[in-house]
Amino acid sequence: MAEQNSDQKNPTAWNRSFEILANELLPVLHHWSRVPQKIISFTPTQSPSFFGLRPSSSSHAVSDLPSLTWGKDADFILDFGIHMVGYLKFRLSSVGAHMDAPCRLRLTFGESPFDVTMGMEGVKTWISTSWLPDEIVNIDECPQVVALPRRYSFRYLRVQVIDTSPKYKVSFSEISCECVSAIAQDHALEMVDFGNQLLQDIDHVSISTLRDCMQTVFEDGPRRDRRLWIGDLRLQALANYSTLRDFNLVKRCIFQFAAVVREDGSLPACIFEKPSLSPSTDYIVDYDALFSAIVYDYVSASGDVEAGHALWPTVLQCVKRSLSSLNPKTHVFETERSQGFKFIDWASDLDKNAAPHGLLVYCLKRINSLAQILGKEAPYFGVVDKMTAAATVFLRDGVFISGPESQISYGSAAWLVLSEVFAPAIARGALIKTLNHPLAMKPLTPYLWHHVCDALVQVGCYDECLDIIKSYWGGMVEAGADTFWECFDAEDAKASPYGDVRNNSFCHAWSCTPTYFLRGKLLQSVNGKVTGKVTMGELDNRWVERSLAQLS
Amino acid sequence: MAEQNSDQKNPTAWNRSFEILANELLPVLHHWSRVPQKIISFTPTQSPSFFGLRPSSSSHAVSDLPSLTWGKDADFILDFGIHMVGYLKFRLSSVGAHMDAPCRLRLTFGESPFDVTMGMEGVKTWISTSWLPDEIVNIDECPQVVALPRRYSFRYLRVQVIDTSPKYKVSFSEISCECVSAIAQDHALEMVDFGNQLLQDIDHVSISTLRDCMQTVFEDGPRRDRRLWIGDLRLQALANYSTLRDFNLVKRCIFQFAAVVREDGSLPACIFEKPSLSPSTDYIVDYDALFSAIVYDYVSASGDVEAGHALWPTVLQCVKRSLSSLNPKTHVFETERSQGFKFIDWASDLDKNAAPHGLLVYCLKRINSLAQILGKEAPYFGVVDKMTAAATVFLRDGVFISGPESQISYGSAAWLVLSEVFAPAIARGALIKTLNHPLAMKPLTPYLWHHVCDALVQVGCYDECLDIIKSYWGGMVEAGADTFWECFDAEDAKASPYGDVRNNSFCHAWSCTPTYFLRGKLLQSVNGKVTGKVTMGELDNRWVERSLAQLS
Repeated sequence: MAEQNSDQKNPTAWNRSFEILANELLPVLHHWSRVPQKIISFTPTQSPSFFGLRPSSSSHAVSDLPSLTWGKDADFILDFGIHMVGYLKFRLSSVGAHMDAPCRLRLTFGESPFDVTMGMEGVKTWISTSWLPDEIVNIDECPQVVALPRRYSFRYLRVQVIDTSPKYKVSFSEISCECVSAIAQDHALEMVDFGNQLLQDIDHVSISTLRDCMQTVFEDGPRRDRRLWIGDLRLQALANYSTLRDFNLVKRCIFQFAAVVREDGSLPACIFEKPSLSPSTDYIVDYDALFSAIVYDYVSASGDVEAGHALWPTVLQCVKRSLSSLNPKTHVFETERSQGFKFIDWASDLDKNAAPHGLLVYCLKRINSLAQILGKEAPYFGVVDKMTAAATVFLRDGVFISGPESQISYGSAAWLVLSEVFAPAIARGALIKTLNHPLAMKPLTPYLWHHVCDALVQVGCYDECLDIIKSYWGGMVEAGADTFWECFDAEDAKASPYGDVRNNSFCHAWSCTPTYFLRGKLLQSVNGKVTGKVTMGELDNRWVERSLAQLS
Repeated sequence: MAEQNSDQKNPTAWNRSFEILANELLPVLHHWSRVPQKIISFTPTQSPSFFGLRPSSSSHAVSDLPSLTWGKDADFILDFGIHMVGYLKFRLSSVGAHMDAPCRLRLTFGESPFDVTMGMEGVKTWISTSWLPDEIVNIDECPQVVALPRRYSFRYLRVQVIDTSPKYKVSFSEISCECVSAIAQDHALEMVDFGNQLLQDIDHVSISTLRDCMQTVFEDGPRRDRRLWIGDLRLQALANYSTLRDFNLVKRCIFQFAAVVREDGSLPACIFEKPSLSPSTDYIVDYDALFSAIVYDYVSASGDVEAGHALWPTVLQCVKRSLSSLNPKTHVFETERSQGFKFIDWASDLDKNAAPHGLLVYCLKRINSLAQILGKEAPYFGVVDKMTAAATVFLRDGVFISGPESQISYGSAAWLVLSEVFAPAIARGALIKTLNHPLAMKPLTPYLWHHVCDALVQVGCYDECLDIIKSYWGGMVEAGADTFWECFDAEDAKASPYGDVRNNSFCHAWSCTPTYFLRGKLLQSVNGKVTGKVTMGELDNRWVERSLAQLS
């Protein structure tokens, strides 16, 4: 998620006791070290390859590095074998008569093969080019341990020696990444045998994505934007309950949002932790409403009823902006009635009447369910009934439609199904018909693909859900993903919502949910078997081994 | 001085007790803070101007800086009003909705207007481009005090905001340079009134150059090469005796060289302090010999006879390589007879027979004089006599000649005069005739201009010496120099021995000697009057005031 329409005129009504609670839940970050596994190069290939690049090992083993010397214009790529979030350091030594001039290096931290092969010049993007993952470093004295102060998100490290001098070259040794996450290497989770390598990999890549985004908050992406968004948080929390089960980090993030509630009761779309907790000016109507679902999911998963009570007033308020979009006579969501950006998906011409209608019902039902858990009266039975009846306007000829043009889209279908406003058989039929409709607008983001999958599971279409998981998320795995991406277009490796693929995030929270399905409602249909416990460190090491085995 | 021919086959014969002595003389560096004085810009001008650029003040005072905000592609120059060597820090703040992306800055540290106006792209140079004075800095969080770890040498700071984001801009405050030198701000020296602003400025710029080069050693230039060379040290020591009188730093440097004497008794042309004291592989025959003059000058100026005794064996050895170039029959220096680069000046086609002959006699005489001070027998009376007699081959038709082509050059003339091998009247006449000769090869470097001046003073041509000081060093002052440059061609501001002016050093030790002449043998002829004491801090502050007054 990048910049959204702002809604700056709504001041924050700080809830400082929630902020204190959130601060007390600040996780101790865990650190571990990883070293490069191979010196590699990528060469263009005509063979089927998503990136059009074939990785191959250098004739030099990575253990040769301390004895290899590099001068002006040297350029090589190190493969750490796994996606990491952390801090790079290395020992730089001069080799030759003397280090009689500084050494200037360009270091590029690659999440994808493009990052370390395209260069970082001439990037045309409407978001900041400051996100680009390269650094120029000048070193005056060797030998020296060069420890870069910034945190990076990468698997590949491209090293370019811009210059040394005619009198010396440099060698690199003791290269390591001090990895960091709220989840330690000895953190154990259930090992599930899916009896299928692709599903095994999809499950693993989901968990890696989740882990690398789990820092002092659930970040949307550790490369970009490195912060907490409501939409991402909801999906991360779901994946987390199925795997790593870190309830405190979810609780912290929930209370961070509740701490920065605005005077009208709405919640900002994202928050900043630094320099101190503060709300973004970004506001998204559907994210606001979904806060209620996050709280419901959290209380259900954790049993933390006390938190539910504390958050109840915030939950009640967060759907107000959505409710203000309802036509008071028809009880149909009419997007023009309320201010504020509605997201649903990045597709810019997606009609946003039907999907927000479904999404709001979905949220109101979660609030009603939360009320039951908390022993309160369910506040939204009446409006849910009216919106359920009203939802028939979105169903015509057995497909879901939205807006004045009767647009057919996966987005509308997913949320109307998830809202359970239609009888299961009708919903299932309309969903399948919509998904098969030749004009139906498809999702652009994994975020909406998640909701399509969730809707399919909701109506028992497990095979159809699995097909999407295998083709969409499996497509990323087959393209070489260690972590799931912010966006994926199987037909266009350079697709980007930002104008340039070099500003994409390749480890992005909102694509981490296949494990939620595979370990959840799909477990039986895929014959998944829990075989015991495994630590993150063991999972990581197996992944590194597999990565290297795949390398020619 | 940059890379020279190497002479790597001559191993070091460490004198560890000298190294210990040198280490004990490591100066405590003094620190003080300077802040920017103006926001300025340079615009091309047709008016007479060495750089072809007219500096002008921004409509914003530097005190406005904290309230000014800068976004993508912003570009401004800060003028600190004086050349400094030190560490930059500043507070960077974000202004706007939120700092939702890193900030990427390019900082360029300018010694000259070209540094902050030409950009640093496409530099073609045969020395390392790693010397270029720009840094790319990425900042993730604001507000933050950004303290750059490297030491820079600059008066101007160009700040380019490569990117922020559409959501925020940045502001700069608390910008300062933590200046550093072996010479403190309260270090006092004699104030001399020259009754002439140009001479006053030349004297001041000499001292500033010297001070900025005085770090843990006498550096050749604080931007480049940042290290100790014999040739530079000799001139710095002379200027130092006339001004700042830091004998310990000279002694330290002398013993550093003596510590790394080679097995054949010769001395490397330069040394490195980091990671530990070590000789460069660079070797220069004339630098080697001049070590004797440095020791003689030091013992004479300081009265440290004990050091003279300790260094005596090293002094005796350092002329051996030069002596091996003497024709055993004629006692004429024949450059081809000995291995090793002879420098004298950067002019590549300078014939190097006559000048090294004079230089060697000059050195042998210094050794004989040192012997007298130390109560030893003068070792080189015999060879001096023979070389004096032999020197007549270098005088023909009243001018000095050198080599098979009978080349006439300032270099040959300067060193033959300084050697005092001819009677004063003959030497004076030949020098003036050489300098007036239309074909005489002129110096390229301030280093050789120093020796021409020294020769003129030697034969009593004070006015001619003063003319050179006023036109050559005065030319730099009039071009806007705060410190004297590595090289200066009044006709070509972009002249460089390295192929690109952006790799030139604009604070360079070997050009710091006008103060040695002005406060020494020229003092009377320019009517200079010692008016009391002044501290370096007072001198600096006056200079800043004058710099700013000159700004439009």
